[in-house]
Amino acid sequence: MNFDFKPIGLIHSCFKEKFGIPRQSRLIPEAEARLEVLPPYNRAEAFRELTTYSHLWITFVFHASARAEWKPTVRPPRLGGNQRVGVFASRSPFRPNPIGLSVVNLLALDLSGNGVNLRLGGVDFLDGTPVLDIKPYIPYVDAVPDAESGYAPGPPAEAIELSFTPEAEAVLANLPDSHASRLRRLIWRVLQNDPRPAYLREEPRNRFGMRLYDFNIRWEVKQRSFRVTHLESLSDRPFD
Amino acid sequence: MNFDFKPIGLIHSCFKEKFGIPRQSRLIPEAEARLEVLPPYNRAEAFRELTTYSHLWITFVFHASARAEWKPTVRPPRLGGNQRVGVFASRSPFRPNPIGLSVVNLLALDLSGNGVNLRLGGVDFLDGTPVLDIKPYIPYVDAVPDAESGYAPGPPAEAIELSFTPEAEAVLANLPDSHASRLRRLIWRVLQNDPRPAYLREEPRNRFGMRLYDFNIRWEVKQRSFRVTHLESLSDRPFD
Repeated sequence: MNFDFKPIGLIHSCFKEKFGIPRQSRLIPEAEARLEVLPPYNRAEAFRELTTYSHLWITFVFHASARAEWKPTVRPPRLGGNQRVGVFASRSPFRPNPIGLSVVNLLALDLSGNGVNLRLGGVDFLDGTPVLDIKPYIPYVDAVPDAESGYAPGPPAEAIELSFTPEAEAVLANLPDSHASRLRRLIWRVLQNDPRPAYLREEPRNRFGMRLYDFNIRWEVKQRSFRVTHLESLSDRPFD
Repeated sequence: MNFDFKPIGLIHSCFKEKFGIPRQSRLIPEAEARLEVLPPYNRAEAFRELTTYSHLWITFVFHASARAEWKPTVRPPRLGGNQRVGVFASRSPFRPNPIGLSVVNLLALDLSGNGVNLRLGGVDFLDGTPVLDIKPYIPYVDAVPDAESGYAPGPPAEAIELSFTPEAEAVLANLPDSHASRLRRLIWRVLQNDPRPAYLREEPRNRFGMRLYDFNIRWEVKQRSFRVTHLESLSDRPFD
């Protein structure tokens, strides 16, 4: 008894690779994505009244995390990567059915042209993620602020210091003001959430690279002090 | 590009038919279900640390709502069944991928025997529902109490009057005390949520039947006054 689902949409995300994606949605409000609704679902009427909701549930496929075999336990990064918990007591992408679930901000519904596109904020999607369903967030049902949660009681937010080399600053200075501040804020948030896997936090390795939108970014880290050493836009319209 | 998922569990619910199921989870705390984890997923270690969470997300299949064709709009019962909204602006079971999503209370994890069973409260599952995934509810991410929601701003809770005929009271009196009060409360909650489809609320029809656990229940209604006229247990252990 298997169930077969078709993607109804495709994610175009600021996160072009796994490294840098926050552990959960809503941790980085500045992280944005476009959800392109695929035919035959790209009909305006299928989204009537959607904009009366501020938040949506996106059900998606962890398309880059498919594994041949499921494992009954995982090692959550929040526990330092050493302790094992049951896969069903985690949100790990490595699960029997690789189905993801994220609550995100609905920023805009774009019905221009022949398409339907949703602009989403606070995302934790990898670029290219297939979307299975979109549902409205209903606070009187979905919001359980006093729910008890085991090992993940709050966001992993420690203060960090962030600086840019003069070369990286020069690249920012060449961008339109709003783009520069948006990119600067996004980098800051991603680093605040420390994307390094636990086993690399204690290592001598201190140089990392990542891609956000169409920017290649290299940075160094010493304790909680991060420095962007290289910033390069890979296209003329790096935010598209 | 289709995706194929296997059920990891099966729901044994107090709701044996669609009629009577609340519109959302958590509306009826007394509504309980057992989630039987299916092999090969019924391994205790896959649920390690699960009981540190009070609430879970259950991703499931609307197995009794499969339709040949999807429709871009639906008529939510909350709007009286007359007004159409986009299917993606609704939680309707009739959607392109019939995937359901409910937040429920984790009441107990039963690892006795060779099985894994989860006792769940506040459910809105039909008996026999196939489960695709179990995830912990993480309040700092999932709880957005100030989210804006369109046509469903709060639970549909109007006061009702509930009475039982002497014959129905006699059946309750024959049950163990805790069972009788549990069944009485469940019936009250189901009727308070008024399970009648909108088009039947104005009709002359005022007699209805439903099944909760292994009880056959018949009731009459006049405005907000409900009367249980018939109560019959279909088995010796009607709550199993």
